[in-house]
Amino acid sequence: MTQAIVEFFWDAASPYTYIAATQLDKLAAASGAKIVWKPFLLGKAFEATGNRPPVTVPAKGKYLFSDLKLWSKFYGIPFRFPDKFPISSLLPMRAASAALRGDANQGIAFSQAVMRAHFGEGRDISDPAVVQAVAESVGLDGAALLAAAQEQDAKDALRKNTEEAIARGVFGAPTFFANDTMFWGNDRLPLLTAWLKGELQG
Amino acid sequence: MTQAIVEFFWDAASPYTYIAATQLDKLAAASGAKIVWKPFLLGKAFEATGNRPPVTVPAKGKYLFSDLKLWSKFYGIPFRFPDKFPISSLLPMRAASAALRGDANQGIAFSQAVMRAHFGEGRDISDPAVVQAVAESVGLDGAALLAAAQEQDAKDALRKNTEEAIARGVFGAPTFFANDTMFWGNDRLPLLTAWLKGELQG
Repeated sequence: MTQAIVEFFWDAASPYTYIAATQLDKLAAASGAKIVWKPFLLGKAFEATGNRPPVTVPAKGKYLFSDLKLWSKFYGIPFRFPDKFPISSLLPMRAASAALRGDANQGIAFSQAVMRAHFGEGRDISDPAVVQAVAESVGLDGAALLAAAQEQDAKDALRKNTEEAIARGVFGAPTFFANDTMFWGNDRLPLLTAWLKGELQG
Repeated sequence: MTQAIVEFFWDAASPYTYIAATQLDKLAAASGAKIVWKPFLLGKAFEATGNRPPVTVPAKGKYLFSDLKLWSKFYGIPFRFPDKFPISSLLPMRAASAALRGDANQGIAFSQAVMRAHFGEGRDISDPAVVQAVAESVGLDGAALLAAAQEQDAKDALRKNTEEAIARGVFGAPTFFANDTMFWGNDRLPLLTAWLKGELQG
């Protein structure tokens, strides 16, 4: 049997993506699936689909804050909402694209760390100095990663993933695909796990 | 120890509310909580908060349909998306308000049955004949319930719940409150269960 592939469309600007990302080792262990990290720009998907960030509805924004705290307790993960929110994630996402084009494990370690810096520690990941420090915390050359983030390859990879996401119907984050079945949201992890175990087909 | 109370704000026009409602016996059994059914008009909460139904974003509408089918398989419940959607739920919700003011168990049985008629069987519950038939299927006097739905008490109870929901921050359905902690969505049932077990406090 070939190993199932789960494509993970993620943007470090999205708090629910941080929360979901902390559960991916568990997802892989429970399902045997390989997770493929696909950085994209959520803001572009909002523009293309007419969807809006939840915080644009005040009642939803208020709930979101309480909900994120409950999920962080549920999962037992650090959570600190950043003072600066929302931020442009262009720089960290280009850096992640560059990192993921190198050693995949290090790329994933950087991707996890940059989300944890933003939503676990409340840091401003649009700041190059923060991106550099995060890179160094996972053993990457921070200055080299900042330089690679500005290269055409990293920009193109991020744009390509974003276009692919929109073409496949992505309107929010995190979004997972198992084959062509889409799962939107941290709260769909139980459904995705059941799907991967073959419990929802047919 | 006093029994925990979960307030359940529901509108039969909402497919995720149908799906969540099928799991409430399980929630009560797992948590020991008593569930208090509070019919309200979701459309009014959309108007008051500026939130929009998910189907107003085409990509979200497309996903919603696939997602609902997956949840129905996950839970093992009947699902048939109604040809007529969205409908005005004013009549069935007034009928539910009237039914819940009588024998609570029969009121809940009617509330469950009217959602199952709409999203489990695809029937048009804005049709008085359907509401009457659903009432009779749970042992109520259908004609009497239709008459009670037009009485001021039923109208006032529904309006009062709707105003209360909006005042407490409800912007979607289903919405649960455990004390004053809000849980929005079928997908928050695991979080609500954990909260009721005392795992998320502090």
